[in-house]
Amino acid sequence: MQVNIERIRQTMEAIARFTATPGAGATRLSYTPHYRKACDQLAAKARALGMSARYDAVGNLRMRLAGADADAPALIIGSHLDTVINGGNFDGVLGVVSGLEVAETLIENGVRPAFPIEIISFVEEEGTSFRCPLAGSKALAGLLSVADLKAIRNEAGQSLYDAARQFGTDPDHLIEDRLHSDEIKAVLELHIEQGEVLDSTGLAVGIVECIAGSHNYRVHLGGRANHAGTTPMDLRRDALAAAAEMTLAVEHIASQADRPATVATVGRILCEPNAANVIPGKVEFSIDVRDVAEEAIASAADAIRAEIDAVARRRKVDCTIEPTGSSPPRPMARWIVERLEELAQRAGLAARRMNSGALHDAAAMSSIADTGMIFVPSKSGLSHASGEETDFADIEQGANLLLLAARDLIADPGPQ
Amino acid sequence: MQVNIERIRQTMEAIARFTATPGAGATRLSYTPHYRKACDQLAAKARALGMSARYDAVGNLRMRLAGADADAPALIIGSHLDTVINGGNFDGVLGVVSGLEVAETLIENGVRPAFPIEIISFVEEEGTSFRCPLAGSKALAGLLSVADLKAIRNEAGQSLYDAARQFGTDPDHLIEDRLHSDEIKAVLELHIEQGEVLDSTGLAVGIVECIAGSHNYRVHLGGRANHAGTTPMDLRRDALAAAAEMTLAVEHIASQADRPATVATVGRILCEPNAANVIPGKVEFSIDVRDVAEEAIASAADAIRAEIDAVARRRKVDCTIEPTGSSPPRPMARWIVERLEELAQRAGLAARRMNSGALHDAAAMSSIADTGMIFVPSKSGLSHASGEETDFADIEQGANLLLLAARDLIADPGPQ
Repeated sequence: MQVNIERIRQTMEAIARFTATPGAGATRLSYTPHYRKACDQLAAKARALGMSARYDAVGNLRMRLAGADADAPALIIGSHLDTVINGGNFDGVLGVVSGLEVAETLIENGVRPAFPIEIISFVEEEGTSFRCPLAGSKALAGLLSVADLKAIRNEAGQSLYDAARQFGTDPDHLIEDRLHSDEIKAVLELHIEQGEVLDSTGLAVGIVECIAGSHNYRVHLGGRANHAGTTPMDLRRDALAAAAEMTLAVEHIASQADRPATVATVGRILCEPNAANVIPGKVEFSIDVRDVAEEAIASAADAIRAEIDAVARRRKVDCTIEPTGSSPPRPMARWIVERLEELAQRAGLAARRMNSGALHDAAAMSSIADTGMIFVPSKSGLSHASGEETDFADIEQGANLLLLAARDLIADPGPQ
Repeated sequence: MQVNIERIRQTMEAIARFTATPGAGATRLSYTPHYRKACDQLAAKARALGMSARYDAVGNLRMRLAGADADAPALIIGSHLDTVINGGNFDGVLGVVSGLEVAETLIENGVRPAFPIEIISFVEEEGTSFRCPLAGSKALAGLLSVADLKAIRNEAGQSLYDAARQFGTDPDHLIEDRLHSDEIKAVLELHIEQGEVLDSTGLAVGIVECIAGSHNYRVHLGGRANHAGTTPMDLRRDALAAAAEMTLAVEHIASQADRPATVATVGRILCEPNAANVIPGKVEFSIDVRDVAEEAIASAADAIRAEIDAVARRRKVDCTIEPTGSSPPRPMARWIVERLEELAQRAGLAARRMNSGALHDAAAMSSIADTGMIFVPSKSGLSHASGEETDFADIEQGANLLLLAARDLIADPGPQ
C-alpha cells in the first residue's frame, strides 16, 4: 500500500491557486476568501470520500474518518493551509494534503481503521495576521481562552474572535471544541524542514526529536540624534552604532555557544530619524534566541542581555530590553520517534533524527498528546519564500512513512 | 551702532509662526504656502524700509538696498527660511533676519552704503523636498542648469522647475538671474553652529575657516533570507550582521583618523524582510564621510570601502557600494576670516576660528565670490529638531559682528 504521489501533487497545485499574489508566491492569510476556498476544496474532497468535515470554534478544519470504534481516541494528522505573505506552496499545505491522502489510500484499499483518524487543517499557524503563531492548534490544545481570542488582534484592530465569527464559526464554543488527552491516540505532522540539514546531507526524511523553544526580545535604544557633519566622533551617542555592536554580540554569543543547536537572530531593525545626514537617535531591534534545551536558551539569552547592557553603558545610550514572548522546547514522544525510525528502516528509507528550529502545530499539540513529526527536505533550506521547493520524490517517501505510521498506530496505539 | 536684538527676536518669532506643524517645531518646506507667507512678510518689511524685493528665477527672495553706486558689486548677506521636517526656529532664519536687521540698522542710522547690499533668502537650502541641498544658492551661483531644475524632483514626482513655476517665478530666466563674480564684493552668512563646539567652550562667536566637503555612498547588501529557527549559525549569510560589522568599521575608521575633523556616519538603514523570525536577506545603508581636506575625505572613504569589501567577502554577502554624491571642501576667503577676527577682537567679542561640518548656502556662493561665515552657539549642539536653541545674547554678538563686517566691507571692499 502506497500513497498516490500524483494525487498529492494535483491537490497541492489546486491549493496553490488560492493566493492573493498570483505570480508572487502563496499569500493565503487565515480567514480570507482565498483561505476559505482552499479549505472548502479539501472539505469537499473529504466528504466525497465519506469523511465528515467541519470548521470548529476558531476555524480549524476537522475532517474525520470514522473508526470501527467511533468513540475511541483518534489518530490526528494535521498541519496548516495559511501562509506568510509571498510564501511557498509546500509549507503547511504538504502536511494537510498528505494527511488526506493517507485517509484516501486507506479507504481505497478497504482498510477500516479500528480508531477514528482526524485530518486537521489548523488555522493561523503562521501568525501572519494576528501575530500569534499556532493560534488554531493552541486553541484546540486548550492553550488559548475565549478572552485570549478577543485580545489577539490583527493590524486593523480586528480580534481573532471577531475574525472567526465573520468566518462563520462560533468562537464561544471554544471550550466544547477543545481536544483532550484522552481523545487522542497520537498526533502526526509531515512538514518541509525549512532548513538545509536534509538537503545538504541528501536524505529524504527527517524524524523530529524536539521542536526548539525560543526567547524573544525587543531592544529599544536612545542615543542622541544630531547633525552628521557637525558632531565630532567622540561627542556622539549613536544609537545605530550601538545596535550594530549589539547585533554582532548576538551573533557571536550564539556562534560560540557550546551547542550547535543554539541560534540567535536580529531580524528586524528600525532606525530614527533614518536620514543619511543625521546621527541615529533611536533604534529598535528584535532578538530571537532558540534551542531545544531550555537551559541553553536561558544561558545564551542571559549572555546576550549582559553584553547589550555593557555596550549601552559604555556608549552612554539608554537601553531597554523588552521580553516579547517565549515558548518552551517541545520534545516529541520518544516512542513515536523510535517507531518512525523502525518503520523507515524497515521500508528502506534513509532517515535521520533531527531537531526542528521552526515552530509547528505539532508543538502545541504535544502539550496534550504524544506527538511525532516527519520532515522532508527544503531545497537550499529555502522557506517562507515563493522559491520554496521540495522534490515530489522526497515527498512520496515522507508521505509513505506517514501512511506506514498511521497504519501502525491504528493497529498498535503504543503505550497508553 | 548696534543691532536691535529685540527686533531680531520679534521678526524670528513672526517667521516661526509659519509652520505646517504648530507645536512640533518648524516645518516650512520650500514653495509651500507657509514658506511663501514667511518670505512675503520679510519682503514687505524690506519694501517698507525702502529696499527692493523680488523673487528670482528659482524663488530666491532678493532684497536689495541700493548703494551710492547702484551698479557697483554688492555685499551679499544671506541664508534660508526653509526647514527640515519638525526642525527648529534658528537654522537659516537667523541669517536672513539678521541680514535684514543689518540693513535696517544702517538705514535708521542714516548710513548710505557706497555699494549695494543684497539680503537673500535662498530657497530649498535643506533639500527636504527635492533632495538637492543648496538648490537656491547653487542655481544663483551657476552650479545648476535649467535642465537640472527639470531633473530634480520631489517624492511626488514634481520637478523643482515646475514647483518654481507654480510658486510664480520663471525658471527659464535662470541664466539671466545668475550672479557673477564681478557683481559681488563679498558674501556673508550668519548661522547657528549646529554642533557643540561653541556651546561646550562657552564662546559666543565662531569664524568659519572652511566648510567641510563630503563623500556619500549607499551600500547594498544581499545575503540570504532564511528561517531564524532552522538555519545553523555557520550556514547563514546574514545581511544585517554584515551591515553591523560595516557600520562599526565606518565609526572606527573615522574615530581613528589622524584628524579630529574627519567624521563618518551611517544614518540610514533599511532591512528586508525585516521580520523578527527571518534572517535578513537584504540591507541598504548610507555612509556620509566629511572633512575640510579633500585628501582626508578620500583617505577615510578609501579605507571604509576596502573594509566593507573585506567584510562582504568574508561573510559571502553580495555588496555594491554606490556613490550618491560628493561636495568639495569650501574654504572661506582668508582675508574675510582675518577681517572678521580683527573686528571681533576690536569689539571685545570672544571668538574662535572653526570649521563647519554642515553645508551652508555660503558653500555654493564661495564658488563665485569671496565668502565668510559667522557662527553662534547651538545649545548642546542640537539642530534639525524643535528643541534647537540659541541665547539671544549670543545672537546679539553674532549679529553685531555681521553689522561691523558689513560696515567695514562697505568702506573697504577688501582685495579685488
